[in-house]
Amino acid sequence: MSDAAIADIADVTPDATKAAIETEVRQIGKRARAAARALALAPAETKRRALDRAAELIRARAEDIAAANEKDMEFGRAKGLNDALLDRLKLTPERIEGIAAGVAATAALPDPVGRVLAEWDRPNGLHIERVATPLGVIGVIYESRPNVTADAGALCLKSGNAAILRGGSESLNSSAALVSCLADALEESGLSRDAVQMIPTRDRAAVGALLRLSEHVDVIVPRGGKSLIERVQTEARMPVFAHLEGLCHLYIHAAADPEKAAAIALNAKMRRVGICGAAETLLIDKAVAETLLPRIASSLSEAGCELRGDAAARRIVPAMAEAVEQDWFTEYLAPILSVRVVDGIDQAVAHVNHYGSHHTEAIVTEDQAAADRFLAECDSAIVMHNASTQFADGGEFGMGAEIGISTGRMHARGPVGAEQLCSFKYRVRGTGQTRP
Amino acid sequence: MSDAAIADIADVTPDATKAAIETEVRQIGKRARAAARALALAPAETKRRALDRAAELIRARAEDIAAANEKDMEFGRAKGLNDALLDRLKLTPERIEGIAAGVAATAALPDPVGRVLAEWDRPNGLHIERVATPLGVIGVIYESRPNVTADAGALCLKSGNAAILRGGSESLNSSAALVSCLADALEESGLSRDAVQMIPTRDRAAVGALLRLSEHVDVIVPRGGKSLIERVQTEARMPVFAHLEGLCHLYIHAAADPEKAAAIALNAKMRRVGICGAAETLLIDKAVAETLLPRIASSLSEAGCELRGDAAARRIVPAMAEAVEQDWFTEYLAPILSVRVVDGIDQAVAHVNHYGSHHTEAIVTEDQAAADRFLAECDSAIVMHNASTQFADGGEFGMGAEIGISTGRMHARGPVGAEQLCSFKYRVRGTGQTRP
Repeated sequence: MSDAAIADIADVTPDATKAAIETEVRQIGKRARAAARALALAPAETKRRALDRAAELIRARAEDIAAANEKDMEFGRAKGLNDALLDRLKLTPERIEGIAAGVAATAALPDPVGRVLAEWDRPNGLHIERVATPLGVIGVIYESRPNVTADAGALCLKSGNAAILRGGSESLNSSAALVSCLADALEESGLSRDAVQMIPTRDRAAVGALLRLSEHVDVIVPRGGKSLIERVQTEARMPVFAHLEGLCHLYIHAAADPEKAAAIALNAKMRRVGICGAAETLLIDKAVAETLLPRIASSLSEAGCELRGDAAARRIVPAMAEAVEQDWFTEYLAPILSVRVVDGIDQAVAHVNHYGSHHTEAIVTEDQAAADRFLAECDSAIVMHNASTQFADGGEFGMGAEIGISTGRMHARGPVGAEQLCSFKYRVRGTGQTRP
Repeated sequence: MSDAAIADIADVTPDATKAAIETEVRQIGKRARAAARALALAPAETKRRALDRAAELIRARAEDIAAANEKDMEFGRAKGLNDALLDRLKLTPERIEGIAAGVAATAALPDPVGRVLAEWDRPNGLHIERVATPLGVIGVIYESRPNVTADAGALCLKSGNAAILRGGSESLNSSAALVSCLADALEESGLSRDAVQMIPTRDRAAVGALLRLSEHVDVIVPRGGKSLIERVQTEARMPVFAHLEGLCHLYIHAAADPEKAAAIALNAKMRRVGICGAAETLLIDKAVAETLLPRIASSLSEAGCELRGDAAARRIVPAMAEAVEQDWFTEYLAPILSVRVVDGIDQAVAHVNHYGSHHTEAIVTEDQAAADRFLAECDSAIVMHNASTQFADGGEFGMGAEIGISTGRMHARGPVGAEQLCSFKYRVRGTGQTRP
């Protein structure tokens, strides 16, 4: 995704500067750890009030935030960012209001800390509870999207975690302005402003320093492209909630309802092409390709989608471009769709598990047994039957705000919201029991 | 803990041998990945039958297993293992029967895969389920305890995971004999014997190779001492379920019931001194130290426990040895207890969070508010009120067999049984929904 974010990882800083940055990042981590200990015990109402206040401050300081963003835009233009990246960086008044509304919505979520996740009694009278607790200190590394600064910061705080934020270097001023709103709101609410901090330098050495700081950082959440995430997974000395790309597949099974297939294909690809739940590859059973593919292809083409097919698909729709091996591995995030004709479920599942990113896959079929098999055998965070892959979203799941969709299998999988940013502990209550 | 296991991590192997081992470990991983894909879809009844058959085979081959163990004992004696380590390595007929019974008990557990952990409907008619799935391939690195080979292997299989086992090098033959029972049982049940494999070499380079194999190994479970685990956490290129030492604290609060305090102190330390739930440090409020400590100290001394106290404790019980700073950091796993007099809860919690290993802590008090504070503020996997720390055990929690007690905060915390060795996925069922 963000090449800028990827470049930020490389280390080309002089040793003396690196040492100074290492020291600074360590200090940030130390303060975050202390703040996290206190925040973990903060009452739900205090956290809610702090986040509400942060939303107010974002609204009240909208002009300052816009001015800070304009500095970032100048920097970005000078750096030669393309239009898509500049658009992602840009904060309009509407977008700033959207950010404030998002923080207020997070404030209104049920508090995830202290929930009793399970409880039971033992024959010896011990009462055991599994209780949700914060994770601790969360490091978030992300693209030059200022809104993520507020979204991620607010979610971390809601779940009782301290956050250390490192956005793409172009968003430094915008992020600083937003972090100030969160930190000031924390302070006004009697909490520590160190509970949300950002790395205040564009220097790429700071990322390496953060990834080594296992003493003070409990988990790293990277958002971005494959190479960023692989690099983080290699370098991080703490657990990583990987938010890999969404190389999502839509599989049209032989027993698909043609209307549903056509509607879902168009929606899954074209509703928004730049989100991680957008379909990138269409798999279609050869039994129905002859009848269904021309219709799906023409509606996609009319909507402005380029199709790249394998040989069998191109025999049916000769206007398609040729798909090469690399296409099956590609998250286009653009109006392009690769198309492959398959023999049936086995081949569809094998394709998904080989080429996919374990994010979201959907099958269209009226055959319940076929759907069950596809849902069971695709090794992905989200598997869907007769629904568009674009529903892969915390909000659509009813989970409130999300920090992203985790494609790993540990701890958090799928949409990562406030609940998923929690750990748990066991609380055991006795009346003097000793173990025989 | 096992110095041998720690030494196994160091790399002193010639490069050519290392390359050969790297290739071999990679082949093991590749086979494990293929086996895991199939095992993830195996019916509960098939897994149960395979584990029952494994228990039968362990019983039927008890003599062969004992003979293999005798080779390991010779190796261990030649290597100069101390009596405690030799005892841990030794398999008597009773212990072999215990291992078989453990595998049969795991077979009888409810199947953890496919459980619907949560489900809800969305206003647009989508039905969403969170469903338990296996994690994939689990690498287990552990001490020279042959029973762990069977316990860990059986738990991984029960939860639909393929296992790659690497025990301490002295247990190689015993482990191989036990793994054969599991693998043969899998094969007889129509499953792949590759679902449970061991690293068939004593060479330490194999551990490094396993830790780098992120492509085929989804999680590493290390069991052992602090240095082993820190090394694994540094080198592993995949998530780690750390099973750190159990530096457990017992805190006698000012409002403690004297009878409960005395009984729990004796049990928490002395019931079994070698398990991770044994208390290592006693904290006692100065308000009751004068009256309670002499009684607790004398019952512990009578039971053969050495006490090492701070200055305040030694003023009250002058027979105590002097505790030095290192004592507060030490998991004795022996009849030794460090004793510190504290001002109250704040100091007790600060001590626990600074010196502890985030495993298990207990408070003895009749003051519910004090108990609630201690339970909330101690950042440990298990926190107990008026109960012995020796209850920190999957079996005592009613969870069946466990692979250990995780001291990390990600994914699995506390006792790790079959359920904790699962991940989950979201299953979404629609009727043709597209996203507006």
